[in-house]
Amino acid sequence: MSSDSSSGTLADLGESGLVAKILARIGESKVASPSLEIAAGDDAAVMGTSGSSFVFSVDMYAEGKHFRTDWSTAIEIGRRCAAGSIADVCAMGATPVGVLLAIGLPAVTASHWVGEFMAGFIQEAENAESIVLGGDVSGCDSIVISVTAIGTIDSGNAVSRCGARAGDIVGICGRSGMAAAGLRVLQRGLRSPRVLVDAFRVPELDYTAGVRAAMSGATSMIDISDGLVADLEHIARGSGVGIEIETKSIVVPAELVSTAAAFGADPMAWILAGGDDHAFVATFPPKKRLPAGFVAIGRVIQDSIGEVLVDGVLYRDAYEVSPGFQHFSS
Amino acid sequence: MSSDSSSGTLADLGESGLVAKILARIGESKVASPSLEIAAGDDAAVMGTSGSSFVFSVDMYAEGKHFRTDWSTAIEIGRRCAAGSIADVCAMGATPVGVLLAIGLPAVTASHWVGEFMAGFIQEAENAESIVLGGDVSGCDSIVISVTAIGTIDSGNAVSRCGARAGDIVGICGRSGMAAAGLRVLQRGLRSPRVLVDAFRVPELDYTAGVRAAMSGATSMIDISDGLVADLEHIARGSGVGIEIETKSIVVPAELVSTAAAFGADPMAWILAGGDDHAFVATFPPKKRLPAGFVAIGRVIQDSIGEVLVDGVLYRDAYEVSPGFQHFSS
Repeated sequence: MSSDSSSGTLADLGESGLVAKILARIGESKVASPSLEIAAGDDAAVMGTSGSSFVFSVDMYAEGKHFRTDWSTAIEIGRRCAAGSIADVCAMGATPVGVLLAIGLPAVTASHWVGEFMAGFIQEAENAESIVLGGDVSGCDSIVISVTAIGTIDSGNAVSRCGARAGDIVGICGRSGMAAAGLRVLQRGLRSPRVLVDAFRVPELDYTAGVRAAMSGATSMIDISDGLVADLEHIARGSGVGIEIETKSIVVPAELVSTAAAFGADPMAWILAGGDDHAFVATFPPKKRLPAGFVAIGRVIQDSIGEVLVDGVLYRDAYEVSPGFQHFSS
Repeated sequence: MSSDSSSGTLADLGESGLVAKILARIGESKVASPSLEIAAGDDAAVMGTSGSSFVFSVDMYAEGKHFRTDWSTAIEIGRRCAAGSIADVCAMGATPVGVLLAIGLPAVTASHWVGEFMAGFIQEAENAESIVLGGDVSGCDSIVISVTAIGTIDSGNAVSRCGARAGDIVGICGRSGMAAAGLRVLQRGLRSPRVLVDAFRVPELDYTAGVRAAMSGATSMIDISDGLVADLEHIARGSGVGIEIETKSIVVPAELVSTAAAFGADPMAWILAGGDDHAFVATFPPKKRLPAGFVAIGRVIQDSIGEVLVDGVLYRDAYEVSPGFQHFSS
């Protein structure tokens, strides 16, 4: 894989290379705003005036990459797109308030599919107390969905990836590994265990968890979309710390154990590497009680900067790490 | 064409049918917010707290539908996507402050294309004093770009499509018909006149025109994306008025005259029906001086509600009206 960005294709550059390149370009912008609190690169950007700030994030979902219409109903795809995007503003400690939707559709798409997609999308937005603030439709070769999520927060209270301090407790709210296991089930042409497949189809989100974490003094927070360890690495790198987690603190659901056994897989590998559950992980000052719904699974350390240790061993040495979904692999 | 949305495809339903269906679904949402000033359906939604409001709009641009990589450079496509989206927040009278970008790309896309696209996108955002607040990338079968534009405005000052009153003066700021003519030139395999082709490739926008119009007491405003008459019809329907325009008030650029003559077309038809120039049209109380850059082209009348008259004749009777680009035609 080439890191030379002046020639070659995206298949050479890779997703992380492309994102780094784009963020570098954005960083070169000469426009400045006194009301910008947190710039692009975190879960969401934060901008505000007069004590109240808005939080902004966008995600894109492509047919065949993020979803398949034979694996999920239109309602489920609508719900998942809303949930995954709104999770980003929650992970800043913000209260979600609105979403904007842009959708590209082939002319052959059944009208009822679009109606069901919208029903699911609006239903999930409502679950998060969010208003659909706008949208656009376009013809397209395949189904592509872009969701912008917007939240509000008191200025200065947003929780970025960059505030974790040595000694902080790492807490998780929600399940990890369920969606990844559900995806493996679907990839094998199976439809059960239902609880795993459902976790892939529609993440089950606690939309007030982020606000609770922020009110409990969370020093950093992220929602798990790349995987528990991969997202904790984002916090570790952003905060200039190391993170140590203990697998004995993590409850492994029975369905994950049985399915992993049937597939000859390690359920803990799914929990540590599986993305798309959109559970929230946050760091909290020591000796403070974790907010409701959060379970302690580790702590922040001052060495191994940018790294995550699992049961005392560097994660990337201990587990056979799959790089997750590669958008531009050819 | 069937209007039955419970069966059939998007090719049957059409773009306007789909948008109406989606807006109806959004209208059924039970979530309400005291800070929502203007809901989905206008150029942009408006939401705010403590005297200051944010303005939100999203647009999607698909390869082969909105742009072709052999007709425009990556820089031009990046600039056009930014400009077209930011125009919507300007058309509410707001000051643009930020953009979010989601982009779907085939793995075979050249990395330098993406770099040039980003350079153009950021350059145009800077022209509008806007910060890139966030983004997402995804693999995709063809290039798809979604841009969310954000602006700010004092609460209560946003200019919607719904405030035009009989007697108001209709003013336009910017050119109309140039982009449509440029598109015809490119469709014929030609590359000149350059001024027309350039107008299609990158709209030339006055990003402060909307603020000037709002400060001059504009009663309604829109940016021309569907076509001058089609967008004035949006104002006429939204405001419950009729609109009368006089073609003798409209300056027809020389390149438009000569190209139309060469193509056997009527340059005024391009001016009246051509979209994508993103000029601003607004209505102003009578006897007030129009803001700088705006030229009077007509007035608001109390009959012919929802209709636009051109030189005293109902537009849709007088001109051979093309329905504009049809997204879902099969």
